[in-house]
This record gives sequence, structure tokens and C-alpha cells, in this order.
Amino acid sequence: MRIKPKLKYVIGGAVGAAFSALAIAGPAFADENADAIASLSESTNLLWVILGAILVIFMQAGFALVETGFTQKKNAAHVMSTNFAIFGLGFVGFLFVGFPLAFGGFSYAGYFGLDTPMNAEPLIGSGNWAFLWKGWDHLGSSASPALLAFFLYMVAFMDTVATIPTGSMAERWKWKSFVIWGLFCGAIYYPIFAAWTWGGGWLGKTWDTMGLGVGYVDFAGSGVVHAVGGAAALAGAIVLGPRIGKFGPDGKARAIPGHNIPMAMLGCFILLFGWFGFNAASTFASSDIQFATVAANTAIAGALGAVIGMYWITFRTGKPDPGMMVNGMLAGLVAITAPCAFVSPWAAALIGSLAAIIAIEAVFFIEKRGIDDPVGAIAVHGVGGTFGVLCVGLFANGVYGNGWNLAFEADGTTPIELKGLLYGGGLGQLGAQALGVLVIWTIIFGIAFGFFKLQNKFTKGGIRLPAEMEIEGADIPEMGVLAYND
Amino acid sequence: MRIKPKLKYVIGGAVGAAFSALAIAGPAFADENADAIASLSESTNLLWVILGAILVIFMQAGFALVETGFTQKKNAAHVMSTNFAIFGLGFVGFLFVGFPLAFGGFSYAGYFGLDTPMNAEPLIGSGNWAFLWKGWDHLGSSASPALLAFFLYMVAFMDTVATIPTGSMAERWKWKSFVIWGLFCGAIYYPIFAAWTWGGGWLGKTWDTMGLGVGYVDFAGSGVVHAVGGAAALAGAIVLGPRIGKFGPDGKARAIPGHNIPMAMLGCFILLFGWFGFNAASTFASSDIQFATVAANTAIAGALGAVIGMYWITFRTGKPDPGMMVNGMLAGLVAITAPCAFVSPWAAALIGSLAAIIAIEAVFFIEKRGIDDPVGAIAVHGVGGTFGVLCVGLFANGVYGNGWNLAFEADGTTPIELKGLLYGGGLGQLGAQALGVLVIWTIIFGIAFGFFKLQNKFTKGGIRLPAEMEIEGADIPEMGVLAYND
Amino acid sequence: MRIKPKLKYVIGGAVGAAFSALAIAGPAFADENADAIASLSESTNLLWVILGAILVIFMQAGFALVETGFTQKKNAAHVMSTNFAIFGLGFVGFLFVGFPLAFGGFSYAGYFGLDTPMNAEPLIGSGNWAFLWKGWDHLGSSASPALLAFFLYMVAFMDTVATIPTGSMAERWKWKSFVIWGLFCGAIYYPIFAAWTWGGGWLGKTWDTMGLGVGYVDFAGSGVVHAVGGAAALAGAIVLGPRIGKFGPDGKARAIPGHNIPMAMLGCFILLFGWFGFNAASTFASSDIQFATVAANTAIAGALGAVIGMYWITFRTGKPDPGMMVNGMLAGLVAITAPCAFVSPWAAALIGSLAAIIAIEAVFFIEKRGIDDPVGAIAVHGVGGTFGVLCVGLFANGVYGNGWNLAFEADGTTPIELKGLLYGGGLGQLGAQALGVLVIWTIIFGIAFGFFKLQNKFTKGGIRLPAEMEIEGADIPEMGVLAYND
Repeated sequence: MRIKPKLKYVIGGAVGAAFSALAIAGPAFADENADAIASLSESTNLLWVILGAILVIFMQAGFALVETGFTQKKNAAHVMSTNFAIFGLGFVGFLFVGFPLAFGGFSYAGYFGLDTPMNAEPLIGSGNWAFLWKGWDHLGSSASPALLAFFLYMVAFMDTVATIPTGSMAERWKWKSFVIWGLFCGAIYYPIFAAWTWGGGWLGKTWDTMGLGVGYVDFAGSGVVHAVGGAAALAGAIVLGPRIGKFGPDGKARAIPGHNIPMAMLGCFILLFGWFGFNAASTFASSDIQFATVAANTAIAGALGAVIGMYWITFRTGKPDPGMMVNGMLAGLVAITAPCAFVSPWAAALIGSLAAIIAIEAVFFIEKRGIDDPVGAIAVHGVGGTFGVLCVGLFANGVYGNGWNLAFEADGTTPIELKGLLYGGGLGQLGAQALGVLVIWTIIFGIAFGFFKLQNKFTKGGIRLPAEMEIEGADIPEMGVLAYND
Repeated sequence: MRIKPKLKYVIGGAVGAAFSALAIAGPAFADENADAIASLSESTNLLWVILGAILVIFMQAGFALVETGFTQKKNAAHVMSTNFAIFGLGFVGFLFVGFPLAFGGFSYAGYFGLDTPMNAEPLIGSGNWAFLWKGWDHLGSSASPALLAFFLYMVAFMDTVATIPTGSMAERWKWKSFVIWGLFCGAIYYPIFAAWTWGGGWLGKTWDTMGLGVGYVDFAGSGVVHAVGGAAALAGAIVLGPRIGKFGPDGKARAIPGHNIPMAMLGCFILLFGWFGFNAASTFASSDIQFATVAANTAIAGALGAVIGMYWITFRTGKPDPGMMVNGMLAGLVAITAPCAFVSPWAAALIGSLAAIIAIEAVFFIEKRGIDDPVGAIAVHGVGGTFGVLCVGLFANGVYGNGWNLAFEADGTTPIELKGLLYGGGLGQLGAQALGVLVIWTIIFGIAFGFFKLQNKFTKGGIRLPAEMEIEGADIPEMGVLAYND
Repeated sequence: MRIKPKLKYVIGGAVGAAFSALAIAGPAFADENADAIASLSESTNLLWVILGAILVIFMQAGFALVETGFTQKKNAAHVMSTNFAIFGLGFVGFLFVGFPLAFGGFSYAGYFGLDTPMNAEPLIGSGNWAFLWKGWDHLGSSASPALLAFFLYMVAFMDTVATIPTGSMAERWKWKSFVIWGLFCGAIYYPIFAAWTWGGGWLGKTWDTMGLGVGYVDFAGSGVVHAVGGAAALAGAIVLGPRIGKFGPDGKARAIPGHNIPMAMLGCFILLFGWFGFNAASTFASSDIQFATVAANTAIAGALGAVIGMYWITFRTGKPDPGMMVNGMLAGLVAITAPCAFVSPWAAALIGSLAAIIAIEAVFFIEKRGIDDPVGAIAVHGVGGTFGVLCVGLFANGVYGNGWNLAFEADGTTPIELKGLLYGGGLGQLGAQALGVLVIWTIIFGIAFGFFKLQNKFTKGGIRLPAEMEIEGADIPEMGVLAYND
């Protein structure tokens, strides 16, 4: 996903050529045909974006099932309900505030090959707060279908970020505090890094400002979505502290098994299904057939992640733990999300395999550090996403994505190649990616940590459930009902 | 959804112009290109209809999970099985009888911009019973792919109607009586109102006959599907009476909690997912990019419905009841279904918000009247759907849908504008919508009530389960198995 | 699904004509338009293949839920995990070995109307082992999006085969033995029959070599996927033997009820949903609008299968057993998979109805023979799939598919008609189908049986779980966790 010039040029090219020829050759029908082709191409591209948005929205169900299945029965209504409510809460924050904040700085039309160039602010608010209000056009009668398609796709990505901390913070988070997070994430938290990258901001311009490859590249959001979500998941888990009983008096971690393995595995299947919308529809155009490569790479990384995750956890513990098989697949999917359009299938297989091992090791590492993440969200999304961002700088093969971020050589016409270290691209692209990673784990993590810390301070009794509610289970005291009634 | 002239004219226009130019300019290739464009446009439009049908069919799973999750464990196999079997039962009734009855009066081809004008009967059977038999063409070798796509989309909508009463009548309905309902709904009940509206019947012609706006407008079925289903749900719940124990000796309602909240929430996510097919694919054409506006409005109304529903039930009872959050989202989705193509995003947000409040209040109101609806189907579909139908008459903004129902001013060429009260459209459109609502809650409700009453009278022992089976649970006596075996 | 000349010719025709005209008429824009149309058609076709692949991949969730729901609680994590892991295991085998083995003999491009003719080997390995290595191109940077789309669709079909035996062999199969099966199926087992049919092999050429109709025809895999999977399911169930307690000392079968009926029914709904990708996207092109006919026929057969299944099991046992309603729908879907593109809707209704009755009777028959298939996989996929393959030879109506397998009359230009016995096609096509069935139940079944027998012999303790683990439940000893923790 990016500011996408290629599509515009391609379509514009075909249409433009027809128009030019027309000036010479004259007959009226050529004009009609060229218009019809452009219109058909645009509508089919929009259809792909909408289908992608639908698939990503459905991923909410997957997250809900994974997180609920991997947590305890006594909190099942609570965990499921946070995952349910976050869809609407993040949505509302993004609809009214976050969307113009993230993408108000340039014409959305540019995403769909229509008419206007991108013109983004390097930093949110630098000299042009007005875009916050201009962005509100998207609520009025003048909202174009293309703008609304773009909004729908983007709101779905934002909601993925919002739902990641509901996993790491599960079973001990106050409902009312959670509600504020949902609104904050949609309105402020997600839009910041999104504006700096996909929104046309400074991280996409480091090819120009710092000479780093084509600038930060993240096709579908290993960083913009997953690592950013993982950073918030880590911040929240630290502020909340571990669940009662997670660590013994000796400080050693104890297993708190999830209450429903089939539920979690169904959730993972739904995530796999939706991930094709997440990644492949990030071409923003069905006319860009790279979507097929993206889809295949996504499946390859997910499959290898599951298989290597199975072998790795069996090697580590002697059993093919279902939870780790799930996290292995998810880590593979998270990691391929940034590089999916730019790497070869063999690299997708390797990325998925390594991501599974890294994420499983990260689960153990995080637990040893005294941090309690009931579902492994920090390891899968935070660590897996970070690895994925870096993989662009390692494995990008130069076949697709050259000139990304409108990055041109000094001559102003030659697109800069998008090549990773292993394809002779040197350290430039890897540097651009590493800078993005650095920003996520310092500034963005800091914002999340500050938010939860401040919220904890100014909330009566803090953002953590009282101990007696946590021990009893949050369902009755918080939601008023049990998840399961016999 | 409607008799859709626009598409036909647009495509026809492009092709036609090319043909005209051809007559003058001569070269053979223009003809070839124009044909190829028309063919590609048609096939992509059909693809969208099929994808929409698939999504709507998948909604059956959503209904099944919502209804089963919100009812008791002892009836889970029974409730799930009614929702499973209804798909086939309604389908069979519609395939052999209902489809030609509802849509036999005009050429289906008109829906796909192909060749023939609509030519519907104002009332089913008025002088042309033959269409019942002509409609059977759809079973033979001469059935065109376009006709079958239309059938598939329509049968999925019918099944939504059929499955709504399985919620309000759950836990006390005899299997054998339920089976008859499924066949009746597909064959007779659904087709009546569908014929009068989408089938080209008299309610779509009140612009001409009564001067009411552009006549009854219902883009994807707040009325034709949801309110019609809700009317049957109310009729059935009245005839069956409340579950044993629902109302105390003092007449006060008691809560009978559902047995599986995560199951119901998964069902709601599946419904949200499928609803994009329900609403957005009702453009019947991917070349009509209004599908993107529809998709965004649908998501906005659902998100707002969930959030406002959460706040409203917390305000009312002190807890963010998961059941009411689900019903809030569903009410938002139901209500936006009629106006989704005709309103601005801000209006979609308002419609979703109001629908959630209205539906939650309706749940309490219906319960207070002594009617037992285990899952809130009457409130969500009946009341929410009615509200949605009226919203077209309030919020339609005149951007899209002018000339709907082939409604022209007296000059025969100027399309009548589709504008609601708030956009200066006066009371005409609201009147057309109100008339539709009146018909649903009198004639259509009466047909459902009469059906269940008669069936109850002529069924040995009535259509309600014997008390001992209801108390024990319907699973073993009716289905022969328990839902859950340890 | 087949070697598909039609698409290529149609698109090629339009483009070609434009080019020819161009040579005469001259203007540059016609060329541009024709190119744009061809490009748009290709990208939309690829989109349909990718969407189809996604839907088929999601079917893994459906199989997982059906098989887990219909088996016992004590093995739920084990059964669910085999269905989860099989996706990756089969995928890995197919990615590195099976794909080139099955489809390395001809240019994949032919499937997408691009440029090259098919040129397959009649038998795997006859003179051209090199294609195994050529096929590896699909892992490198030179892999085209079209090739990867084809791979993704095909790997999803293979995984369906791989997952069928996890049903018939459930609750007594060692995890480590299962893992080997997954790799073997993807690498070797599935590719054999696929190469002989869809891969351009000898069974598709019997029109030429034996004068049998147009040769073996299997649109989406009643045979290539379902019967082949069912044959392995039978082989595995025989080698493992029945579960302890399934047959009493008198040899009579005892019911071992599934632990979660709603789970199984949700799985069936997911399968129905995904089946539209399985069947309708097997046109490989959205420009081939027969996909709409396929989708409708698929729904009709599934709906009738469920309804007739319900009536049949009620007639047989007095109750509408949920498991048999599920198997009725699935049998209808399995049986229509081969003939779905070639038959009229009335025939689809009949095929679905008969398949349900045949599969239910097969469940009883198989059980009486002392074979224990916990979920009915052999009956549904093996018997239902076999019936479906034969139905092509009975019901094909000659409207679509003439010249399939590039079958021409002696003149080399007239396509051979694809007509079944009931449409005056005589016994030729039925013979081609019967030969395919014979091969599946002799050679292919033999390979599966040999594989499991050999594996059983060379695995320490055999491929069956020790009795004490089976009695206790496989979850803790094999997976290390329980499916459900309270």
C-alpha cells in the first residue's frame, strides 16, 4: 500500500493515447471505447478494494476467536465483547477524526488513478491543520464512491491495530478503560504512523531526504498495522501487569491454558482467509495483476509458518502445541505482509519459516521478562511485524515496486529500484526499513505507553480490574452475563 | 434493488454510440472492440452478482449462530438445525414456485442490461397466470447464466426472510410444522411483497398511480426482506405463545440467558461480512460504482449501531450487555439496507445510531406486551426494517436513484428525483415508503398470522411442542441427538 | 477445470481481429484499445481465480469443524489440529514436488489464454522427468502472477484431498504418521490422478485413444478431488481398523455421537460458501459467464441434497438426524462438482437429491462392512464423488463443454460434443467417466492402501495410537493440551 502512481499512469496512458490519436484520426467511436475501457477498469479496481475491505473486516471475527479461545472460560464473554466492540469504537474514532488526520494531506483520488497528485504533509499538522476539516467531505453528499472505498479499506486496517492489544491485555482490563483505547486508537494512535508512511509523510520521503532506497516501504502493513499494534500491545501489557497467578512466587511463569482450542483454530483460519484481502487487495487495483503474486506469497508464508512452527515447538517441547502452530502461521502471515509484493516465492517460504521460529522464541523471551501476554500478540504482531518490515530491505527482488513513493533518481525520470541487500540493493533500503522500525519502537511505542500510563493515573482505581473481579472472572461483573449458560 | 434501467442505458449507450459511429466511419475493429467491452462489462457485472449471492448465502451461518447462541443449550441442536434446514426448504419452494411467482412477470434480462423491457403484472395473477409456467424456463437447458445469477441472488434473499422466524419461534416450535413454514415462505409468503415491489408490481408504480415520489424504494430489502421476515416472526411468536417460564405468575418477564455468547457474536460478525453482499451487490453491476458508497454506508451504520447500542444499554441497565451490542449492530445494518445507496455517510451514521436505540427499546416494549422473542428478531428485523424503509423518505439526498422504478415526470423524459423530506423532497417519497410499511404490517402480517393460525388448527396437537419436550429440551425428542456430548 | 482452449481463442479472437483490421485501417488508437481490453480481461480473470482460491482455502475451516464436531470431545484438539496442520503439510509437499509433477508437463499459461499450447505427458515421467525441475520456476523471481494464481488455486484443491482422510481416520491416528501422510499427499498422491486428467495426461485423451466421448471430464473435481480423497479415506480406515467400542462383541455397530452439532453445522455452511469458489471459479475466467450457471447448479444440488437427505433419514430412522442432513448437503455438493458446468438446473436438482440418498445408504453400508468412518467421509466424498463423475456421462446437455480436452472429430476442426446418455450422447462419455472411476478405485486406491500398509509396517508400533491413549483421548498425550479447559 502506498501513494500509487503506477496505476494512474497506466490507465492514464491508455486513455491519453486514445485521446491523442483521436485528435489526429477523428472518428467519434474511439473516444467512446476508450472512455468505456477506463470506466470499466476503474469500477473493477474499486470492486477489488471493496472486496478487500470486506475480507479485512471479517478478520475481526478471526481475532475475536483466537483471543477468546486462548483465554479462560470465566472471561470469555468479556474477551469476545472487547473484540466485538473494538470494531465500532475504532471505526467511530477513525470516521470523525483519524481518517482526515492520516490521509487528509493528499488527494485520495490519486489512489485510484483518477486525477490529482499526492500532496502530503511531512508531519501531521505542519502548517496545514486545515486538512482535518477538508477531510470531513467524506461524510457529506459530495463523497465520491472512490473516496468511500478508500475509507472503508483503511478503516478496516485501523481496526486490526485496535484489536491487537485486546489480546495482550485480556482478562484484566476494565471495560470502560478499553472503550477509551478503542476511540483513541481510531482517532489518534493509528493515524500518526499511517500519516508518516502511507499518508505521504516523511518516512516515505527518506529516499530524498536521507538517500535511503526508495524510502520506507510497507506493502500491506507489517509495520504500519502489525508492529504498531504490537507496540501498543506491549505498552498495555506492561502497564496492566501480569494476570494473578501467571508468575509464581519464584517468578517462574505458569501455563494458563486457553479454554477452547477449536475456537482459536477457527479464528486462525478466518484470519488466513481475510489476510488475502489485507495483502492482495493492497494493490488497490485488480488491473495490477501483482495481486496474484501477493496472494500466493501470502499463502506460502502462512503455510510454511504453520509447518515450521509445528516442527519448532515439537523440537522445543516435544509436542506440536496447537497454540504455537496457530502463532506460527500468524507470524508467517504478519511477516510477509510488508514484503509480499516485492519478493519471490522462495523468499516468502523462507520469511514465513523464520517468522514462525522468531515469534515462538519471542513468546518464551517475553514471558521470561515477566510480561504476561495471554495470546502471544506482542510476539506475533510486534516481533513478527518488525521482522517483516526488515525483510523488504533484505529480499526485495527488484521486479516490482521500483519508483515506490515516487522515488526518482537525480535525473527526475529514472525510478529508483526497490532492491534488498540479498539482491544487490546494498544497505539503503534496509536502512529505510530500520528507521521505520526504530520510529515504531521509540516514538509510537512511547505514545502508547504514555497513553496507558496517563489513563491509568487518571482513572479511578486504574485501568486494571479489581483483583476479586479478575479472580471471579470478568463476565458477570463487567458484562452482566456469563459466556456459557448450561 | 429494483427494475434497473440505468445500467442498461449506460452500457447500451456506449455500445450504441460505437455502432452508430461505425455506420459512418466504417472500420471493422471498432465493432470488435465495442463488443468486447460490452461482453467484459456484462461478465464482470455477473461476477459481482454471484459474489453477492455467495455472501448472502453465507449469512445463513450467521443467523444460525446468533439464534443458537442466544437460546438454551438444551435446544441447541434443534435451533441450529432449523437454521440449517431452512436454507434448503425455502430454496426448494422458491425454485419450483416462488421465483416465477415473484419475478415471472417481466424479463429478468432487464436486470442485466441486456435486451428487454420490464413488463410486470401489477398484482400477482391479474390476467397472466401463465408466467408461473414461463418462469420454469429457469430449470431447463435454455436457462441463461444471467437468469441463473439473478435466481441465485434472489433465492438467498428469500432465505433470509425464511430464517427470521426461526429466531422468534425458537425453543418451542415443532420440527414438522417448521418444515411446512420453510416451503411456504419460499413458495408463497416471500414472493408476494417481492412481486409488488422488486418484481415490478403496484407498490413500485405509486409514483404514477398516486403521485408518491418515485414509488416504493427499497434498495436491498429493509422492507422486502427484513420487515417482511419480522412480520412473520411476530405472527409466529404470537401464535406459539411464550416459552414456559418466560413470564412469571405476576406476568413479569424473566431473563432466559443464551447458552453461548461467543457463538452469537461470531454469528454477528458473519452477518456483517455477508451484509456487504446483501447491500453492495444490489447494484446488480460492478460497473455501477455506487456499490462502494453502499458498502461504506453499510459499515458505518453497523459500526454506529454497535457503539450507540453499547452506550444505550449501559445507560439503561448499567452493563454493556453483549446481546444488545449484537442487536444494536444488526439493527443498524437492517435499517441502512433500504436507504444505503441513496444517503450520505453522515445520514448512515445517524440511521445506524437511531436504529440501535429503537431496536433496543422495541425489545423491551415487545417483551412487556407478553410476546416472547428469544433472540430479538421482531425488534431487529421487523422494527429496524420498518425504520429503514421510512429513512429513504427522510434522508434520500437526490445524488443517486433519480428515475427509480422508471419514474418520469409528465413530459415522459425527465426522471423524477429521489429526495427525502430532509433534502426538500416533501412528503411524496415518505408517503410511498409509509404505504409500503402499511402493507407489510397489515396484508403481509395478516397472511403470516393466518398461515400460522390455520396450520396450528389443522396440525394434530398444534404447531407447538408438547410441554414436556419443551421442558426437557427439544434436541433428543425432535432431532434424536444432543447438541453437545461429553 | 481442464485444459481450456476456449478462453484463449475468444480473447485471442477479439484482439487478433483488431490487429488484423489495424493492418488495413491504420489508426494507432485501435491497437491501444484492443490491448487495454485484453489486459483488463486477463486481470479480471486472474482476480476470479484468486477469489476462487481464497474460498477453497477457507473450506479447510469447514472440514475442520465438520470433522471435529462429529467426533468426541476427548479428541477435539487432536482432530482440529490435524485439519489445521494438513493445510501447511500438503502445501509444502505440493509447492516443492507435487505441483511440477502434476502440471509440469504443459505450459500453465494455456490455462489463462495467454500464449502457449498444452503439451502434457501421457504418463508421469514418460521420457520427460525434466519437467519436475522446470516446474521449479514457480519459486523464483521469474514466476508470473498468472502462474502463481494457478498454483494457489491448485494447491487449495490438493489440500481438500489431503484433509478427507483426517475424517475417516480420526480419533485413532498417530500425529507423526498423519504428518507423513500430509507431505505424501501433496507431493505424490494427489498429483498422480491430477496429472492424468487436469494435467493433460492419458485419461483426458481417451476420446482419441479409445473413442470415448471427449475423454474424461471432471469440471471441478468430483473425481480428481473428492473420490481420490475418499479412496485414501477408505484405505486409511481399513488399515487403522475401527475405534475401540465402535463394534460390539456381536459385531454390531454402536453410535459414537459427535460432541458438537452446531460446530459441525457451521462447518457445513462454510463448506457450502467455499464450494462456490471450488466450482464456479473453475471456469478460470470471469469472462466465461458459465460460472453463473455453475454457481446456481451448485447451490441447487446442495439445497436439494440437504432437503432430500432430511426426508430420507427421517424415513429411515424417524428423526431428521443433523449429521445426515449435513452429509446430505455435502453429498449433493460433491456430486455436482464434476457435472456442474454441463447440466441443466433440473438435473442439478436430481443429482443433488440422488447423491444424498446414495451417500446416506453408503454410510449404513460401510458401517455394516465393519469399517469405521467417524464422519462419513468415505460415503460423502468417495461414493458421492464417484456418482458425480458418472453423472457427467448421464446428464451433460451439450450446451457447454463441446471440444473439451481439445477433442475434435476426424476432420480436426469439428469439436466433439459433450453429451450424456440422457441427451442422446450414447455410452461414449459414460465410458470415459467409468474408466476414470475404475482407475480411482483400483490404481489410486491401491497406492493409498499400499502407502498406509507400508507406513504401518515400518512405523514403530504402527500408525495407530496405543489403545490407552485412544481410550483416554488423544489430546493430552499427543497435543499436550486439552481442547476445552474450564
